[in-house]
Amino acid sequence: MKAEIISVGTELLLGETIDTNSNFLANEFPTLGIDLLWTTQVGDNFNRLEEIIRTAIQRSDIIFMTGGLGPTEDDITRETLALALNETMIIDKDQEKKLRNFFASRDRQFPEKNIKQASIIKSAKFLDNPVGTAPGWWIKKNNFQIILMPGPPSEMKTMWFGQIKERLLNKSQDVLVKKIIKTSTLGESNINEMIESFLHGENPSVGIYVKKDGVSIRIAAKAKNQDIAYKMIKPIEMQIKDILDTYIWGEDDQKFAQVIQKVMNQHDLTLGIIESASGGNLANEITNIENSSSFFKGSLVAYQKDAKLFSGISQEILESEGTVSLKTTSELAKQAKQIFKADIGLAITGVAGIDTIENKESGTIFLSITNGEKVINKKLLLPGNRTQIKNRAVFLSFTLIKEFLDTIVIDANHDST
Amino acid sequence: MKAEIISVGTELLLGETIDTNSNFLANEFPTLGIDLLWTTQVGDNFNRLEEIIRTAIQRSDIIFMTGGLGPTEDDITRETLALALNETMIIDKDQEKKLRNFFASRDRQFPEKNIKQASIIKSAKFLDNPVGTAPGWWIKKNNFQIILMPGPPSEMKTMWFGQIKERLLNKSQDVLVKKIIKTSTLGESNINEMIESFLHGENPSVGIYVKKDGVSIRIAAKAKNQDIAYKMIKPIEMQIKDILDTYIWGEDDQKFAQVIQKVMNQHDLTLGIIESASGGNLANEITNIENSSSFFKGSLVAYQKDAKLFSGISQEILESEGTVSLKTTSELAKQAKQIFKADIGLAITGVAGIDTIENKESGTIFLSITNGEKVINKKLLLPGNRTQIKNRAVFLSFTLIKEFLDTIVIDANHDST
Repeated sequence: MKAEIISVGTELLLGETIDTNSNFLANEFPTLGIDLLWTTQVGDNFNRLEEIIRTAIQRSDIIFMTGGLGPTEDDITRETLALALNETMIIDKDQEKKLRNFFASRDRQFPEKNIKQASIIKSAKFLDNPVGTAPGWWIKKNNFQIILMPGPPSEMKTMWFGQIKERLLNKSQDVLVKKIIKTSTLGESNINEMIESFLHGENPSVGIYVKKDGVSIRIAAKAKNQDIAYKMIKPIEMQIKDILDTYIWGEDDQKFAQVIQKVMNQHDLTLGIIESASGGNLANEITNIENSSSFFKGSLVAYQKDAKLFSGISQEILESEGTVSLKTTSELAKQAKQIFKADIGLAITGVAGIDTIENKESGTIFLSITNGEKVINKKLLLPGNRTQIKNRAVFLSFTLIKEFLDTIVIDANHDST
Repeated sequence: MKAEIISVGTELLLGETIDTNSNFLANEFPTLGIDLLWTTQVGDNFNRLEEIIRTAIQRSDIIFMTGGLGPTEDDITRETLALALNETMIIDKDQEKKLRNFFASRDRQFPEKNIKQASIIKSAKFLDNPVGTAPGWWIKKNNFQIILMPGPPSEMKTMWFGQIKERLLNKSQDVLVKKIIKTSTLGESNINEMIESFLHGENPSVGIYVKKDGVSIRIAAKAKNQDIAYKMIKPIEMQIKDILDTYIWGEDDQKFAQVIQKVMNQHDLTLGIIESASGGNLANEITNIENSSSFFKGSLVAYQKDAKLFSGISQEILESEGTVSLKTTSELAKQAKQIFKADIGLAITGVAGIDTIENKESGTIFLSITNGEKVINKKLLLPGNRTQIKNRAVFLSFTLIKEFLDTIVIDANHDST
């Protein structure tokens, strides 16, 4: 089913709000067999909105519209739709009652301009809005459908899950199923060369893209149902996983921290961190994961010398080796293990800012990880601005933790044999 | 100047990446006198991309395109543009040298795939990419221009600030100037009531919108040049600032941490933090600010009991009061001041996860701040999921630091009189 999204609101074109609705819907569509082919953001402008609606009903089977359903003068999505479809809007009495009750139940006086939120056209049915005043419309006409939803993401999502997704599920013909393979260490073009032979298929198709969490490979297959699609994906998935092997850290919507949490929990390991250059970014990423306290003990964001000394590292080392150095970092990793009573200690020092520190240029990052026996140290030079360097340092820390866990787990297996 | 954005990438339509580039550019355009009228996301599909390009050159004076400039098979933006403009691509020898040097300088072998990133068409000039391998194009043809930029936000922004924005500045006619006033504590509807009388103007116009960093008020004026526009904005700005007064924490693109850094530096104050529920999120936000070490000493992310004990808090208090309580939090604030040798200590405890801790429900947050003399404690109950609660806790921590600084700075002024 060919689909497109039209997001209405001048605030989108002024960059004041980012169109997260489209991103949310785009994520929902594939398993419903809905092919999203276009997304358009347009302002609260009668002519341009009408023009896009007319284009959309020519090229798409189903059109999802969000925004412009408010009570104010510049909310014109309903009016424009009515005109583009050559229909007239009328006030629906039941809907008007609902509206007035909504305000009454909140001891608020009904603003008469909200009356327009009770209007509808002949080809449309209302979609209830349990968390707001603007109902949606589901239009069925000729060979197309238009689903109209409010702009506020919470209202849009409530409507989507409550009244729309279920009904589209039944309609769905061919579904698109995706398998995402997430990698670290290798660059986009390296991976392109390694899996080149898979990149020319139509169905399943294989694509490569880069995100904050590394290079991802997407295998997508279209079929009558999910099982068939998965069967089509499987052989290619296996071969690509075989090629990329240890460069793979996760798949689908997994977060790097989740993958590490899983291994840590399996082997009953805990982690303590001392981070300076990353400034709490690593701890923050880890604690975004539900139940992270199952392995994460804590992090000392040692942003200044006093804080580093508080970790128990000897003043001598700090002064002889400097606060940003491999030796200091590996000492801090030991302290991290100790002060947090953790099985594994990790430390990050470096220069995220623009100014050089102790003759180390911006982007210099030192990483060290230890379990008391094994130690791995890394020195890196990362490009980018402050936040980019911080984010990259966090990603490479996860990569290092994975590498470290792989080695000690393998050892553990050896010991047990 | 009528403008539109075309963002290219199937990952956008599959919801795998969100189009932050369009949002960034939309923010940049107004002061350049560029009217953004459409934004379109389209996949790496030859026919649909060509169709949109053909539509765009009919309706827009300037078209900004991002994405699809990578070295891989499915990066087809250049090829499609060449076709849509009836031009042929050729490999530029100088650009090829640059490319090969880029890899050589990083001791990486040149993947022959990347050669296509050296190609260009007659109507285009190259835009250098100092942080990546894909150069941009600036096309001038007939009555339109097309500016082609790489998809990765860091590369796109570097190109924008380095080679594009400046040159567009000279072209600008009528400019739109915005003044943003950022507030905390009050809700959207409160503010709506307080400044109602300003909300109906056309030019300047006043709007209210909610973001992660509180409720923002936008005053926008269109005029021949920036000075005139600012003169139109000023009187309204003054009146609104007068009404919202102490609820205002910053303006325009300021970050809350920057505002706090400024005050901290003025009064030569330093900050130490112990955070559990926010899990390093507060430290991370602070260290995203350039030169944050000028006032930020560090944070102990005390995610487990061991870590809290390491801060020096007495075991008795932890056991009698619990790890999530007002008393414990205010004790941790004192410890934060002490262990980081800071002037001000701040502590955050609470429940960000879904499970209740010590009979405290999800969303419970305790905040405490002290300079050794004064103490402010807060108990909050925040809605939302894990990351929403963490983000809200950080925002309210900044609000608390501001409130605390206001009081002690006022006292300081009193003393000095």
